[in-house]
Parts: sequence; structure tokens; C-alpha cells
Amino acid sequence: MKINSNYKNLPESYLFSKIAKKVEEYTALHPQAQIIRMGIGDVTLPICEKAAAAFVKAAAEQGKAETFHGYGPEQGYDFLRNTICAYYESIGVHTAASDIFISDGAKSDLGNILDLFDQDNTVLIPDPVYPVYLDTNIMAGRKIVFLDANVDNGFLPLPPQGQRADIIYLCSPNNPTGGVYNRKQLKEWVDFANEQDAVILFDAAYESFILDNSLPRSIFEIEGAKTCAVEFCSLSKLASFTGTRCGYTVISEELMRGGMSVRKMWLRRQTTKFNGVSYPVQRAAEAAFSPEGLRECRKHLDVYQENAGIITDTLTSLGIWHVGGKNSPYVWMQCPDGMKSWEFFDDLLDKAHVVGTPGSGFGKNGEGFFRLTAFGTKANTAEAMERIRMVYGR
Amino acid sequence: MKINSNYKNLPESYLFSKIAKKVEEYTALHPQAQIIRMGIGDVTLPICEKAAAAFVKAAAEQGKAETFHGYGPEQGYDFLRNTICAYYESIGVHTAASDIFISDGAKSDLGNILDLFDQDNTVLIPDPVYPVYLDTNIMAGRKIVFLDANVDNGFLPLPPQGQRADIIYLCSPNNPTGGVYNRKQLKEWVDFANEQDAVILFDAAYESFILDNSLPRSIFEIEGAKTCAVEFCSLSKLASFTGTRCGYTVISEELMRGGMSVRKMWLRRQTTKFNGVSYPVQRAAEAAFSPEGLRECRKHLDVYQENAGIITDTLTSLGIWHVGGKNSPYVWMQCPDGMKSWEFFDDLLDKAHVVGTPGSGFGKNGEGFFRLTAFGTKANTAEAMERIRMVYGR
Repeated sequence: MKINSNYKNLPESYLFSKIAKKVEEYTALHPQAQIIRMGIGDVTLPICEKAAAAFVKAAAEQGKAETFHGYGPEQGYDFLRNTICAYYESIGVHTAASDIFISDGAKSDLGNILDLFDQDNTVLIPDPVYPVYLDTNIMAGRKIVFLDANVDNGFLPLPPQGQRADIIYLCSPNNPTGGVYNRKQLKEWVDFANEQDAVILFDAAYESFILDNSLPRSIFEIEGAKTCAVEFCSLSKLASFTGTRCGYTVISEELMRGGMSVRKMWLRRQTTKFNGVSYPVQRAAEAAFSPEGLRECRKHLDVYQENAGIITDTLTSLGIWHVGGKNSPYVWMQCPDGMKSWEFFDDLLDKAHVVGTPGSGFGKNGEGFFRLTAFGTKANTAEAMERIRMVYGR
Repeated sequence: MKINSNYKNLPESYLFSKIAKKVEEYTALHPQAQIIRMGIGDVTLPICEKAAAAFVKAAAEQGKAETFHGYGPEQGYDFLRNTICAYYESIGVHTAASDIFISDGAKSDLGNILDLFDQDNTVLIPDPVYPVYLDTNIMAGRKIVFLDANVDNGFLPLPPQGQRADIIYLCSPNNPTGGVYNRKQLKEWVDFANEQDAVILFDAAYESFILDNSLPRSIFEIEGAKTCAVEFCSLSKLASFTGTRCGYTVISEELMRGGMSVRKMWLRRQTTKFNGVSYPVQRAAEAAFSPEGLRECRKHLDVYQENAGIITDTLTSLGIWHVGGKNSPYVWMQCPDGMKSWEFFDDLLDKAHVVGTPGSGFGKNGEGFFRLTAFGTKANTAEAMERIRMVYGR
């Protein structure tokens, strides 16, 4: 029996598990410390009332024979796929319900989509980036080429001319940097991918944070994207579904590779290795996308975006270099006093009792940088900034 | 860009999609037909009251900031892992909570576990069997050796001496045949696997149907299983969770292959490619495993088992050869009048308006056989048997 020995090439622990462990150890030693968590990208506001009501109703339905729902379609119920189509229409993107696949979250789909591609492909991954892109490709033993994101390109790298690529990861609004590609930049990527028959895996999990209408919320706003891109979306941040679990992946029927329909392959993958999302969760998701639901979601997003403003204002006033925090819940800052990322993590935890995410956990170009998230309460965010001001402002 | 061309070797459509399509076409032509579905293994009774109440309560919690749950542990909440440990103890199996991984269903885990193994492994798959085992390995391009299950061995094949195997699928109670391995037979498999360092992927999704105490409900009841087996379980049939989605996979820390802990690899896989099961679903699952919940689940299972008795009694009285239906919700019958499986499918649908599953959909040894499920209501099951008696009894 041969195991998949690629697993030996993975770093021992997943970034966020390591942070959780460090915080746990610190609080064990300092039980009085009032820790403010700005590390993991988890929301703090609940799912909207409309979604909660639909969730409760559908959960109760599962307990009565007359309203009970058994196996649903693996790709999701039409009521939800149609609702998501309408959501796309509202941002000016035309899709078909059959292009939309409901899942338990973007993270699952981003990992599982790789089933469709051969091991022998060159993967282009920005550095720094969400670790899941890298780890899932290490697991599959693919050749990885890193794309430098840095201060010079505003952490928004463009296609590296002359570089062969088969699979390209883009995340906009970016995790961890908060950077957002504009239409012109995304068009360059789409053209680059179409030219070499590459596939762009476009992570749009944070699209709902884009308030600037000139910025694209979906890669399908870009001409030519349907023949080269798969888009991954999530209700986690839009509708506080981090613990409720629902996402969706969009693949146009125009996306063909090696003579095969990628959409058809994904359908085959999902019908074989997945059994659909919990019916009550899909009802909750449908309600979150209703006009009333979306209005309430927007109020929650506004809170996070106000927090992001508090963070960036503080950093600006302290003279600390940073990007993001506009059209994004993430602020990407340079560590003060030339500290390295984990050094600043420990320092910040110890002196300010604030938890953030070390930039180096997202790639070598993240070294010396740090990610703060705006998902806390306003009070906590303001308190954390006050402490940072006290410790690092002089 | 190279796609995973193994997908070209898959049969075009998944068995149950094909059945659904055929039934849809038939009902479009015959809108008056009162179809009774005994094809797909979906339950008809709701989740138990205790589970529904917990589900509703936790769904409501998601709508309030004070009780909201965001990201949970990818491997499941301890409250559920501990509850499942206690369930194992009740059948005499000692496990650790850390051995138990909560998922959205056995089908997902059965497919995803293959991430941990190299492509270059020989896979032993019984024929006939649940198509997912075969299809997921075709997708990965593995060498597959079929294990003949037939009338001679009661559709319960034993280890083929002299055959090299790295990955072995066993399903007991079996889908589709309803056969159940006894302890002696399973011990042969465990010894065979340990001798060659193979891994048994043991699908125990139907364990709750085993009423005969002499039969093993878990492979971990067999000495030596912890060093060679992974067990896949589900609440789908036990607790009517087919549309609510929850399952669990059990891997002992004693399972090592290629110098690696398979449990640790699975934890790494799940933390990287999965984000855990919906919190309210986990609360519902916990309630289903409570003593009161299990008592209600048992009443539902009793209904299905009574149905299985109605089916087997009818077939016996008609002189039709069959197995299963005891300690299992499936009855595996020979098609009457020497019909082939799909021929009988069409005949049964057309003449009796009853839907079953063609045995040939489960493998070449299934040709000429047919699967009936006991998951309908008692009235429908009796009515279907009455019709079968009318059409095929002479």
C-alpha cells in the first residue's frame, strides 16, 4: 500500500491551527488577559433574521413526514440556484442556473476542483496568499510557480509574460492583503489564461465587500472569462454563514479543456463524491439572498467596513505602511520596528493582547507583514486600535 | 492544461441519475401512473422529534449574536464526537473522540479518503457493489480488481488467496445485496489486510439495521481491525439524515502506512479541504444519538424492517430467489422469467408502476438481479408487493 507521499511535503500544521494553539497556550499562562481576536477571518454578527427564520422553519420541516426532505440534488436545489442567478443579474452578470453548484463552502470546492485536473500541470499561485491554494496542490504533487506580490505592485501581481501556466489562482478582494483587481487588470489575466488554455480559479469569497462600483465583483464581468474561469463564492462573509456552511461555484458551459466540458466533469465529481447541502441550510441561504435578507446582510457588512476604517485610520496616524481595508475586510500592514511576522505576532499578543495573522503564514513575501481582520465588534476593534496606539505609537 | 483524463473512462451518468431520468420520462408519458419508488435508498420517515427540536433550537441560535456559532473545528465539535464514542461503547467498541471525524456524509468521505493514497495501488472492489467505490477509483486511475460476489458465496466474497490488494472495499450490511458478514468472515478479511499491509475501507452506513447480536456492527469489533481499517458511518439511514447531511469516519491512531499516521493525514486533508459540518446539523445529530432520540430512530428502523419482511415474504411465496432483507433495508432478488436487469426495470415500471434498481448498475455480477429497498411507507410497500404478485405471480 502506497500512501500519497506528497503529504510529507506539507508543513506540519495548518496556519490557523498554529495560531489557535499559540493563543491557547498564552491564555493558559495569562488567564486574566482580555484577548481581542483579529486573526482568523470569522464573522461575529449572526445570520440575518430572514435567514434564521427560514432556517428554523426548514429544520422543523425535517421533523414531519409531510414536509420532510430526503436526498436533494447534489448540485443544489433549483430554488437556491435560481436565487443566485438573480443575485448575479443584480451585479450585471448573466449566468444559467445550471452553471451554479451549491456546496458546503468555497474551501471545499477550491480543494475538490483539483480532482478534475491532471497532476502534470503548472500552477501559478500568488505569494502571499490563502494557504489552501498551495497546500491542496502540494497534496497533489503539482509543479508550483509563485507569483510575487509585493509593495511594488501593490500586492496585485499581473501576468508574468513568458511564464507557462495551466492553473492560475486569483483572489480578489484578496485574502490576506485586501487588494482588489480592477477591470483592466483582470482583463489582462483573462487574456493571458485564454491565450495559453489555462484555467483561472477565481476566489470571490469577499465580493460583497466591494462598494466601489468601478471594481469587478465577479470575474464573469470580464469579457472572455467564461472560457477560462471557475468562480468560487461563499455566504460565509456575505451572510455570516461561517458556521452554517454554504457556498457556490460557477462554471460556464463554455469552459472546455482537453475536449471535455469542465462543468460536466464537476457535475460528475459532485454527484459521485458529494450528496448535496443540508436542505434547511439551502433554505436559509435562499432567504439571505432575498431583498430583505440582503439589506440586513449589508448592515452587517457596513459594521465590518466601518471597523476596517478604524483600523486603517489608526495605522495611517501611526505612520505604519498598509494596504486593503477598502472594499475588503482585511488590512495588510507592515510590522512595526522591522519586526518579522511571528515576532510581531508574539509581541502584539503579549503587549496588547491582540491576535492577528502573521503575514509569513501566507508565503515568503508575507514576511515582515501582518493581517488584521475587521470582523470583530466595533467596540473591540476600537479597543484593539487604542492598545496598538499605546504600544506602538511614539 | 491537462485535464484528468481518467474522467473519460467513467460511464456517462451516475446510476441513480439515469433511473431518475427514466422515471421522469415515463411519468411524463403516463401522468396517471401511481408510481411507487423502491429504487433509491432514501428514507421516508422524518428525523426524530428530539433531533428536530435540537436542530430548530440551534438554527435559531445562529440568528442571535449571543448564541451565534461561526467556524467550528473541521473535524467536528467535541460534543458530537463524544456522543458518537458513547454510541460505539454501547455496541462494545472502544474508540477515542480523536478517532472520530464528523462529515456531511459517508459518500463524501468515501470519495475524499482516496486523497491519502497513491495512484499506484491495487484496489479490490466487490462486484456487485455501491457504484461510488468504483467510480471514485476510476477518477483516480487506479488498478481495480473485482471480487466476484454471486449466488455461490451468498454475495459475501472472502479474501481471494494469492491476490495482491492495497485498498479493499467492504460494505456490510451490503449495498446492494443486503448481505451481512459474520465475525469469522470479517476476521478473515482483517487478517488478509494486515498480512499485506492493505487498508480496508469499511462502509458501515447500514449498521443500525443489524438486529442479530451475533453479527458485527463495526469492523472494530474484530481483533486487529484498528491497524488496517477505516470505518465510514452515516446518520442517513439511522436517523433519517439523508437531506440533513451528517456522517462520520473513524480512524484509529494505530493505523500507520508508509511511516505515516493515516489519521493524521486525514486530519490534514480535512482541515485543508473542508470547513466542518453546519453547527445546527451537529446539534441535531447529537440529539439523534441521545437515548430518547435513538429509541425514536429505532421505531423508524422497525417500520423499514417490517417492510423488508413484507418484501421477502412476497418473493418467497412467488418462488423468486433473493437474499438480504434481514439486518438490512435491501432485498436483492433474481429478475423473474430470466429477464436482464434493465429489462426487468422497464417491465416493472410499465406493468406495476414500481421503481427498483437494476442489479447490473452495481456491476457485471448484478446482471439478472434487482434491488428493492424497504424505505417506503408500509402501505406503499404492501401495495407494491400486491402489484408484483399480480404481474409476476402465476
